Amino acid sequence: MTQRAYNFSAGPATLPLEVLEEAREALLSLGDLGAGILEVSHRGPEYTEIHESARARLLQLLGAGSDWELLFLQGGASLQFTMVPQNLGADADYVLTGNWSQKAIAEARLLGGDVHVAASSEDTGFDRIPTELDLRPGASFVHVTSNNTVRGTQWPELPRTDAPLVVDMSSDILSRPVDLDRVGLIYAGAQKNLGPAGVTLVLIRKELLARTPDGLPTLLRYTTHAEKGSRFNTPPVFAIYVVGLVARWIESQGGVAALAARNEAKAQRLYAAIDASPLYEGTARPESRSRMNVTFRITRDGLEEEFLRGAAARGLLGLKGHRSVGGLRASIYNAMPPEGVDALVRYLDEFAAAHA
Amino acid sequence: MTQRAYNFSAGPATLPLEVLEEAREALLSLGDLGAGILEVSHRGPEYTEIHESARARLLQLLGAGSDWELLFLQGGASLQFTMVPQNLGADADYVLTGNWSQKAIAEARLLGGDVHVAASSEDTGFDRIPTELDLRPGASFVHVTSNNTVRGTQWPELPRTDAPLVVDMSSDILSRPVDLDRVGLIYAGAQKNLGPAGVTLVLIRKELLARTPDGLPTLLRYTTHAEKGSRFNTPPVFAIYVVGLVARWIESQGGVAALAARNEAKAQRLYAAIDASPLYEGTARPESRSRMNVTFRITRDGLEEEFLRGAAARGLLGLKGHRSVGGLRASIYNAMPPEGVDALVRYLDEFAAAHA
Repeated sequence: MTQRAYNFSAGPATLPLEVLEEAREALLSLGDLGAGILEVSHRGPEYTEIHESARARLLQLLGAGSDWELLFLQGGASLQFTMVPQNLGADADYVLTGNWSQKAIAEARLLGGDVHVAASSEDTGFDRIPTELDLRPGASFVHVTSNNTVRGTQWPELPRTDAPLVVDMSSDILSRPVDLDRVGLIYAGAQKNLGPAGVTLVLIRKELLARTPDGLPTLLRYTTHAEKGSRFNTPPVFAIYVVGLVARWIESQGGVAALAARNEAKAQRLYAAIDASPLYEGTARPESRSRMNVTFRITRDGLEEEFLRGAAARGLLGLKGHRSVGGLRASIYNAMPPEGVDALVRYLDEFAAAHA
Repeated sequence: MTQRAYNFSAGPATLPLEVLEEAREALLSLGDLGAGILEVSHRGPEYTEIHESARARLLQLLGAGSDWELLFLQGGASLQFTMVPQNLGADADYVLTGNWSQKAIAEARLLGGDVHVAASSEDTGFDRIPTELDLRPGASFVHVTSNNTVRGTQWPELPRTDAPLVVDMSSDILSRPVDLDRVGLIYAGAQKNLGPAGVTLVLIRKELLARTPDGLPTLLRYTTHAEKGSRFNTPPVFAIYVVGLVARWIESQGGVAALAARNEAKAQRLYAAIDASPLYEGTARPESRSRMNVTFRITRDGLEEEFLRGAAARGLLGLKGHRSVGGLRASIYNAMPPEGVDALVRYLDEFAAAHA
């Protein structure tokens, strides 16, 4: 068996080994059924149990009670950029903190919405989370991207808003507790903290379902999926199955609060290593630094390729920054074990010493 | 290791054992990478090779040259019910042959299209494929469902039309050669003949891409996905990976023509067993019978549950008819080996003899 590397890819991202091992067994046969997880009817008893238990576990981990609906959708966060304003109304306030909020704003504008940018950090290259928000009374909703994978910034906590707060939590869902009292809708592509690419989680306050307008195509209506328990049509069975295994793994780790403490410690250790050497420079302002995506640069020109080659040779993968900004990035989602961060810190120290 | 059953589920459906075994190995590590297929970047070299080779193999198996674009989308055939008229124009002619065409028609009407039903078999309970089509000159397109999983009917061959022919081929794609000269667009959810649920294949004539209107949400535009090689946003990596393995498996079986011959023989053997006993009755008219979904009833009341129990005891799964029509159904897609059909035929004969 091949040795597992430490994979710092921003997404799709590393998954817990226990989860992968269990999924592996289920491919040829679910228990003693004689048919695997890819092959069973999405309306049969085996998948029904998987689907419903994934949903129940996620609701519990998110701390969401009976006034919430949890949906498994397809199309990624990118489809939510249009589904959110299509369903909730497009006259919305958006906070602009990077590439993903930019795309979300563009989709709301495409619908003809009266879109207002309530705050932006574009003037400083998206290196921070804005603190002052210019919110409009009566906006359809307020939209924030809770963690920005490209620039490595993260909201220290979610803002309080009068209009329903919509949060793109694709890259930090279940990495720390969230105060749901502040939230109207959360959406998240699964491929960072939740599981494989191919399923999108939407957590929506039931009262917001009343906003879905008549005439919207059936698949784009939140109500369609809510009424049918996310099985209006064939759901992405395998992706939901793995998300359910990840939810169970989170429980086994002590839940979201325990993971949040571990994530905080991982991030602090990594930022400390970066701050300790003049060879490295973090790209986000300290007060806005992400606990999920640690972005940094090498301050001396021409060393990044060597850094990446040396990392790969040590089994440290996926450290290249996003193609739109360059630099380096270590994504340390829930499933990255502390040992992986320790190995990266050792390498950062060695590399700095070698180039002192 | 658990014995594999013969799984006649209509979809998600049985997959080739070789495919499942290879996918199994890739979950923990792609080759010696140290990271599995669920965990690698969708823009990295490992996945790029998987993505592009799946695309190339499918184009070749479909017999589609450089005037065609092949897309990997999400949302199932159900999202195509709205994307097709959104992109191609909604003043279209539809042939109504069952539940799925009904849904497709409803979505086109929801968009305000001048939708015309060019033929229907509703008057006889969808037990046949209509032969006379009342097509309008100047229709945006003509839509047919090539195989009807619920009622067990299938077009013997695709009709010739002046307007571009759009074919929902979710349940018979790559089960037989198709004359692409007659076709403008094919779409298919993967979970019957292609792979797992979670990816939808769209094959579109490049000239039709010019029809996509301005202002459509980005993710719903065929042009978005065509321009970005189906990687505008994170694709459903694992589903596409398995579809690529299935495509390679089809090649190893001798290609689509060889599978078509095998499928024809499987279907004939099964229909012959049904026709041989007065205990069984096929529900589709002989000239419209599907080679993929063999639908039948037991003519004596109250025996279906016993039939299903006995089948399960012999490792023959998924034989219950669609919940909307009841009865029995054996889905015998590409991946159902002839031995599975033989086992079912033996059981049909034994059950008939026991109840003679």
